[in-house]
Amino acid sequence: MPEFRAVVHVMVRRAILDPQGRAVHATLERLGHDNVVDLRVGKRIELTLHGERPDVEAQLAHLASTILSNPVMEDATIELHEVAADHT
Amino acid sequence: MPEFRAVVHVMVRRAILDPQGRAVHATLERLGHDNVVDLRVGKRIELTLHGERPDVEAQLAHLASTILSNPVMEDATIELHEVAADHT
Repeated sequence: MPEFRAVVHVMVRRAILDPQGRAVHATLERLGHDNVVDLRVGKRIELTLHGERPDVEAQLAHLASTILSNPVMEDATIELHEVAADHT
Repeated sequence: MPEFRAVVHVMVRRAILDPQGRAVHATLERLGHDNVVDLRVGKRIELTLHGERPDVEAQLAHLASTILSNPVMEDATIELHEVAADHT
């Protein structure tokens, strides 16, 4: 079965406060990095999984919007690359 | 001064246990997603900053390996895109 590498990027929505990003941004400002005008912290989730492409795409879309992110507060985007095909 | 968007991707090194990734992976397995063979969770940090490209590149390289990651345990990679130039 083909093997895929996927990356799910999860960021808090623009309209919602990102306390972790604020904290890091404030630290940078305190250290003199005042040319940084915005900073947000999100998650990068790397998965390796097996399956046929349409199944994997559907599975990832489901996971990204349920378990891997909170769709009320976060946006998730998916990158998918096939790394090996094994059609024996 | 030109404006840049940068993304710093921070992942725990392969050799080091990723407890958050393990927890999410175990949850997926429990829910029947047994085609997922690996899962790791890292950070995606998005920055907007002003400056000349060489300065911004040097600043980001410094920040990525000091404040934004722990270089003993984590690897950081940097993406940089210029979004607007204002040479008045």
